[in-house]
Amino acid sequence: MCTHCVMESVKRRMMSRRDLFRRAATGSVAAAAATSGIMAATPAARAQGAMRVEDMTHELFPEFPTYFGEQQFFVEEVFTWDEHMFNLNVNTINEHTGTHIDAPLHFSEDGQSVAEIPLSNLVVPLAIVDIREKAAADADAQVTPDDLRAWIAEHGPLPENCCVAMNSGWDAFVNDAKFRNADDDGVMHFPGFHVEAAQMLLEETGAIGIAVDTLSLDHGPSPDFATHYEWLPTNRWGLECIANLDALPATGATLVLGAPKVRGGTGGPSRVFAML
Amino acid sequence: MCTHCVMESVKRRMMSRRDLFRRAATGSVAAAAATSGIMAATPAARAQGAMRVEDMTHELFPEFPTYFGEQQFFVEEVFTWDEHMFNLNVNTINEHTGTHIDAPLHFSEDGQSVAEIPLSNLVVPLAIVDIREKAAADADAQVTPDDLRAWIAEHGPLPENCCVAMNSGWDAFVNDAKFRNADDDGVMHFPGFHVEAAQMLLEETGAIGIAVDTLSLDHGPSPDFATHYEWLPTNRWGLECIANLDALPATGATLVLGAPKVRGGTGGPSRVFAML
Repeated sequence: MCTHCVMESVKRRMMSRRDLFRRAATGSVAAAAATSGIMAATPAARAQGAMRVEDMTHELFPEFPTYFGEQQFFVEEVFTWDEHMFNLNVNTINEHTGTHIDAPLHFSEDGQSVAEIPLSNLVVPLAIVDIREKAAADADAQVTPDDLRAWIAEHGPLPENCCVAMNSGWDAFVNDAKFRNADDDGVMHFPGFHVEAAQMLLEETGAIGIAVDTLSLDHGPSPDFATHYEWLPTNRWGLECIANLDALPATGATLVLGAPKVRGGTGGPSRVFAML
Repeated sequence: MCTHCVMESVKRRMMSRRDLFRRAATGSVAAAAATSGIMAATPAARAQGAMRVEDMTHELFPEFPTYFGEQQFFVEEVFTWDEHMFNLNVNTINEHTGTHIDAPLHFSEDGQSVAEIPLSNLVVPLAIVDIREKAAADADAQVTPDDLRAWIAEHGPLPENCCVAMNSGWDAFVNDAKFRNADDDGVMHFPGFHVEAAQMLLEETGAIGIAVDTLSLDHGPSPDFATHYEWLPTNRWGLECIANLDALPATGATLVLGAPKVRGGTGGPSRVFAML
């Protein structure tokens, strides 16, 4: 049966239930649920009650800023409530849009695709390097080996298999031209990881991921994606446009990287949580 | 600067680094990483060392089985290593493909979009109802109120704010025609939740989600999406094509539902983990 036939069939069957469903959707059932025994239960009964969860993900929408400056996310409403009594969209999306993972394959010939990243590399300790002060003074600021050494001096060795995240404060600009911050020549200005910081992480630590609250692992004016090419071919991943790092301590959180499990994917929009 | 101009610029800048990157991508850097101090660190050093994580997500690929029987996921390779020295795909996808969430908005006029689902409803206790035996005998089997009562009699009350998942054993058929199991008339045969089970969960428990290891919350031959229409308009969610439930106990795991945070989305492919 083709999609059209199925939906015609569904619509016919649904008409008799329309009034009931409209009531449910607009309040009566929802209200009943809100006042049921659900709220009477104690929070202590929740298995995850002792765990704090933060959302590290920006909302994705068609105009979300992109590295290339052109729209990369498109939504087509294929079925709508008014016409079909249900809603369904078809999305077209560049894998590297929104809060998203760069899989090793993104900048390598044969690195891991996003589906091939081991599960143990997606739920990892999170170390946050705060460069907000120097980023406020210089949009081209970078995480350097000195920043990493300062973090280690204060907090101890970077945890094995960790993600090192740059907090430049840039997530606050996500709805503003300052997120790309392109100058008159089209050169962008936002913070990123210096290639020497990536090299230090490779040589001296067990970090498995780096995350930035900007559009690229490399800072805006980078002419050559040096950090991408240094880091990703080693089967380590990157995470771009992470949000909400201000909510977390420098160490102690666990990052849960809900990367899309797409066969052969070079990355993709991800749902990212942090747990404490 | 247009995408084409940017990429031409990148290609020129990259050529001089080609040999270095090829070496990195094809082994030398990866090998160095694998034999570095990373592996010497003890597992106990990992912050999440005490936590077991399971992946509840099917790999997504263009031929992944769909409810409507037609292809719903398309990959376009826009940049490739051989031509551009990096890989990037653009995907087109029906929101309800692969292991995916049904947001309340999918079957309601004004329920929560996938981006509006509260974070506290995405990290929740998981209760697994095992109907593998009756599903093996009858592909049209359903989770009924009796199944829920039997679970409660054995394990105690359903946890507040939990997800109740149906384990019918159907995830084993994901690469087989039996996943849709359409008969000569095009009617599908796979297990799902009976509408009366959904009603019982609404009226007597604090469950916030239901999950199935099949293509639909409603069982295959359903003529009317009764369970969808009963459940989703109450701002509860559904999860379809969940994988790997066999790896988990009936109670005690926490489900982490990495739903895409798409503005106005009616659902979407999700990365789903369970933690113990």
